[in-house]
Amino acid sequence: MGRDHPDADLHPEATGLAAATVKAHSAPHALKLYSGWFCPFVQRVWIVLEEKHIPYQYIEVNPYHKPQSLLDLNPRGLVPTLQYQEKPLYESAVLCEFLEEAFPENKPRLMPEEAYQRAKTRIWTDFVTSRVIPAFHRFLQCQGGGEEVEEKRREFLSHLKEFTREMDETGPYFLGSEFSLIDVIIAPWAIRFWVFDHFKGGLGRWRVWLAAVEQRKSVIETLSEREHYLPIYQRYADDKAQSELAKATRAGKGVP
Amino acid sequence: MGRDHPDADLHPEATGLAAATVKAHSAPHALKLYSGWFCPFVQRVWIVLEEKHIPYQYIEVNPYHKPQSLLDLNPRGLVPTLQYQEKPLYESAVLCEFLEEAFPENKPRLMPEEAYQRAKTRIWTDFVTSRVIPAFHRFLQCQGGGEEVEEKRREFLSHLKEFTREMDETGPYFLGSEFSLIDVIIAPWAIRFWVFDHFKGGLGRWRVWLAAVEQRKSVIETLSEREHYLPIYQRYADDKAQSELAKATRAGKGVP
Repeated sequence: MGRDHPDADLHPEATGLAAATVKAHSAPHALKLYSGWFCPFVQRVWIVLEEKHIPYQYIEVNPYHKPQSLLDLNPRGLVPTLQYQEKPLYESAVLCEFLEEAFPENKPRLMPEEAYQRAKTRIWTDFVTSRVIPAFHRFLQCQGGGEEVEEKRREFLSHLKEFTREMDETGPYFLGSEFSLIDVIIAPWAIRFWVFDHFKGGLGRWRVWLAAVEQRKSVIETLSEREHYLPIYQRYADDKAQSELAKATRAGKGVP
Repeated sequence: MGRDHPDADLHPEATGLAAATVKAHSAPHALKLYSGWFCPFVQRVWIVLEEKHIPYQYIEVNPYHKPQSLLDLNPRGLVPTLQYQEKPLYESAVLCEFLEEAFPENKPRLMPEEAYQRAKTRIWTDFVTSRVIPAFHRFLQCQGGGEEVEEKRREFLSHLKEFTREMDETGPYFLGSEFSLIDVIIAPWAIRFWVFDHFKGGLGRWRVWLAAVEQRKSVIETLSEREHYLPIYQRYADDKAQSELAKATRAGKGVP
């Protein structure tokens, strides 16, 4: 479990609508998704699988008892890992593009056709990973009060505003009327973090986007019950989380 | 000038074979490459343009007197920036994929056709940017002696060995007999840094690869004379460089 695992007392499996999605994909299949139900990096890939109706097998990984089948594929035991034609693939953003390319007949297409829009998708994917997520974690894990936490909040909001300014004016999605990969890339954070409710001012277009993304079937059906996410993020908010991402954030680094 | 600019006394323009390449692309053209002759991130994009014989205009940017035309495209004034159909694009790895997609008729194709190989290209591109380059800079900028610099050297070599282990056994290129995007992604560092000559042991396959890449016409024709690179890297080796990458390295962070 790589970037976002919580600690030993986490709830062991998906709940809510995500539990039904897991159940529907429990049968053995050549394409395997090694997952953690709580992990937003996993959810990127999971949303793509669901959006495109790609057949797959869901395998929940206990980060403290990683299955040998995963370690054989990926010695670091990171999720998300895909097994595809007996070979391992990982890195959530890479996996999203991979699924788009390996299953070209599956609709909807999530990558735009036009080269400029594809480049724009990749530029802003990089921005989410290198700017938005680390800033969110610096804000979430900040233990100072007053001006210190306000500075982290401002930094995070400024990244989110920069992202929002790039959105198609009408939307509702980032590139316009169609849901696409850049929406997938940020959605797991956007829908999950209640601190997003604290935003005010200048984020009208963001709210239009969020309302649209929150209603996507693939997003809803990969979400567990909020009560099981809460203890996980509580550990971040107390700055006691021991995931690679929490440690990197503490050390002033980006997504590891 | 973003990640790798040297300081005010840098040589103002390309020399050697790169000077001839610049001259051949000095005429106005709709596709513009905003460049720094010394910047390895730029050279990634420049190699792709040359490999694929894509018509373009080369524009040398003085990092201390950035042209307004660049600032209008990209307020941060970073190179490489492309102007394409009046619109700005940046991020060197994104630009490489963009050129491949925007000029599908131009041979050679640098991205493999097969989805798994494409994903592998992207995974190892990310590895070069997030692991190899920062480790190289930690090694290069290390001011400690003895065990401290040895540790940085070991860390850097271990990343390079991990990269090398993923290479096709026969080669000579990373994916096999054909030069491809992942070769482009790491080539500007591999060919430029004389410290690479210090490697010994376990890097036989790396040397086969380097010998092949060093002979690529596109690589040779985008290289200036070594004497003009030297003062730039001297400032890194003294840990006095003020580029964003040098500062990030000093702060223990990755590629900014």
